[in-house]
Amino acid sequence: MPDAVQSISAVEVITAKRDGGRLSDEQIDWVVAAYTRGDVADEQMASLAMAILLNGMDAEEISRWTQAMIDSGDVLSMSSTGRPLVDKHSTGGVGDKITLPLAPLVAACGAAVPQLSGRGLGHTGGTLDKLESIPGWRASLSLEEIAAQLADVGAVICATTPALAPADRKLYALRDVTGTVESIPLIASSIMSKKIAEGTGGLVLDVKVGSGAFMKTEARARELAATMVRIGEAHGLPTTALLTDMSVPLGRAVGNALEVAESVEVLRGGGPADVVELTVALAREMLTLAGITAVDPAQVLASGAAYSVWERMIAAQGGDPSAALPVAKHVEVHVAERSGVLTRLDAMAVGVAAWRLGAGRARKEDAVQAAAGVRLLVGLGEEVAAGQPLLELHTDTPDAMAGARAALAGGVEVSDEPSDRGPLVLDTIKAG
Amino acid sequence: MPDAVQSISAVEVITAKRDGGRLSDEQIDWVVAAYTRGDVADEQMASLAMAILLNGMDAEEISRWTQAMIDSGDVLSMSSTGRPLVDKHSTGGVGDKITLPLAPLVAACGAAVPQLSGRGLGHTGGTLDKLESIPGWRASLSLEEIAAQLADVGAVICATTPALAPADRKLYALRDVTGTVESIPLIASSIMSKKIAEGTGGLVLDVKVGSGAFMKTEARARELAATMVRIGEAHGLPTTALLTDMSVPLGRAVGNALEVAESVEVLRGGGPADVVELTVALAREMLTLAGITAVDPAQVLASGAAYSVWERMIAAQGGDPSAALPVAKHVEVHVAERSGVLTRLDAMAVGVAAWRLGAGRARKEDAVQAAAGVRLLVGLGEEVAAGQPLLELHTDTPDAMAGARAALAGGVEVSDEPSDRGPLVLDTIKAG
Repeated sequence: MPDAVQSISAVEVITAKRDGGRLSDEQIDWVVAAYTRGDVADEQMASLAMAILLNGMDAEEISRWTQAMIDSGDVLSMSSTGRPLVDKHSTGGVGDKITLPLAPLVAACGAAVPQLSGRGLGHTGGTLDKLESIPGWRASLSLEEIAAQLADVGAVICATTPALAPADRKLYALRDVTGTVESIPLIASSIMSKKIAEGTGGLVLDVKVGSGAFMKTEARARELAATMVRIGEAHGLPTTALLTDMSVPLGRAVGNALEVAESVEVLRGGGPADVVELTVALAREMLTLAGITAVDPAQVLASGAAYSVWERMIAAQGGDPSAALPVAKHVEVHVAERSGVLTRLDAMAVGVAAWRLGAGRARKEDAVQAAAGVRLLVGLGEEVAAGQPLLELHTDTPDAMAGARAALAGGVEVSDEPSDRGPLVLDTIKAG
Repeated sequence: MPDAVQSISAVEVITAKRDGGRLSDEQIDWVVAAYTRGDVADEQMASLAMAILLNGMDAEEISRWTQAMIDSGDVLSMSSTGRPLVDKHSTGGVGDKITLPLAPLVAACGAAVPQLSGRGLGHTGGTLDKLESIPGWRASLSLEEIAAQLADVGAVICATTPALAPADRKLYALRDVTGTVESIPLIASSIMSKKIAEGTGGLVLDVKVGSGAFMKTEARARELAATMVRIGEAHGLPTTALLTDMSVPLGRAVGNALEVAESVEVLRGGGPADVVELTVALAREMLTLAGITAVDPAQVLASGAAYSVWERMIAAQGGDPSAALPVAKHVEVHVAERSGVLTRLDAMAVGVAAWRLGAGRARKEDAVQAAAGVRLLVGLGEEVAAGQPLLELHTDTPDAMAGARAALAGGVEVSDEPSDRGPLVLDTIKAG
């Protein structure tokens, strides 16, 4: 419990927002700093977070809140020996392994990509969890190792450091248990504070829309994207957002090792068309922000040049890029019960199934299975014959199969209707 | 931090209310009980309280919430040897010493009054703080002592027991530091849970309106009163609410010993007209609920019969009703700067001045001064001559005078306008 003088101030900040007012710069600076050092109690910040969720913040409040979170920790100054630094963030989706081929591809095109990433929670996988299925690979690097790898390889994907925006880490854990995650001002400031503190020179956001995404409607996704682009602008960080479809899983693999394998296919010039399309679209935006316009990332990807950066990137972090990936002990094949067209392949259903199989975690302290997940054998809109395999469930824990089956119920359908997947990239949102 | 299963449930309850839904009976029962035993964390309840404050609860939710708080502790079954039990609650005001003459008066008329009271916080005084200025008087009684005194004297004013509605005690302390006090559903259920658990047979509510009251507008006060009357009805407790004016202090004394002295004047058949009027009005409603209609409380008060109950009530709790009350070490007299009419005597300004002088506390651990407070020498609408004493500031700590003077600035005005205090009792609200 904070002392009385500070309680009074915290209550003033809470009631200002509760009553629909805007928070002053001084109130925002004070409450974020005092919460970080423990002088504003968790219950006070929880109440404020709910008031922000329900009453909103305007653009200036959001920008100041972001700055206060940046100021709670260190701001990195990365060396990339002359290469322009550019980073990417995805709001998270099912089968969203795009960071894996994207970072080496953008590095192969001449930029440097400092990807400080997180782990997965719930139905969406985490980039670090995926890479940790590669034997020997380690997520934690020192700042010196990051700088050296950026200069040498041009791409690094590693765990974020606790010194970046500690206010955000503390606030995110609080929001997670207090029903206050779903606030656009709080989501946007959380993401942007870490990216700005990381010191990147440009940022491309992949804001997902649809059943498997955090934002279920295009309107909400568009608002989140515009809010983040405005924060970037206010902080001098050139930022572009793509709104992309997440009603259907990306690619054919959902899980940790399964997604690494699919990423390698893409890096070798193959892989599912949607993964290639989104990787190239994001690379193009990143390269534009980096001022690199003479290189066509589609050609670089097809050439295999990105794969050699991948090999060096994995090896630099102790991983063996040529090692066999873990294989699940139990695989169950689901077949089509009738002939027709695959008219439904719901991202959330598949994501939850993979999570149940062991690919994801319910709590941040849980372990994940490297080999667990779902392999999709047929794409949306493709014809299937009765008895044809539709998908595979992979797990080391066969008891998990029943939960995965239940999660898929109603999420995968074969019917007589023709079906067409809509566009993958729905829109591009830039400042100004 | 609660364990994960319980967090998930708490988050479900929070998000249901956050998203504008109603809470089910099961959700309410669970969250109140789990919070009381510590399985729902303070930060979770704070977030829920803010969601309730901003999104409201309907009548059924409020009634269930009240029941869940009652169920968190004991329900008393009071013996009053055949007298009907009836109680009163005031939402708190400046100079509101009405409980002191009222309880003995209603007992003198034939009912039994079990007043389990609290202490003051902020600008409104607490009934126990006032009575503790009487040498020897003690607030804490056992349940046996309460029962014996009710049977013998017919009136008891004492500290509430920790066994009544412990959920409310915990929740109120949380709301106090999280900006979630000002919620009508939470205020109403807090008050009513304690009164219902106390076991009274009837309840009269004095809901204050105006600058010195918690409810600043008549609309809010009316909503609070109606909400509490409905809760009483739903729980089989006959409840009547009076809406009464609190834009001007009640009576001429604000402070602990100062208010006891004024109460004794009223019990002896004198005292300020407004204090007498409200005491009699509330007594009439209490006696109606108790089924005692043949006795006129105005006559009983004038007769001095209530004073003899007061003497016995004070003596039964160790107090000496004839002992001299503490007198402040420092008294500062404020005089009228001009001739005219006292056209402004703001309840909040006077309440804050008394608080600053030492009559009130900012934190529940703080002590109060028995003798501190404000004596009003002129009533609203009365003529004054330049240089005539208007009020006195009483304190043992002369450093406090400056703060009291600042609190009064703009709150007390003499001008040429005629001024009339409006009616004291604005309305009566009953079930049905």
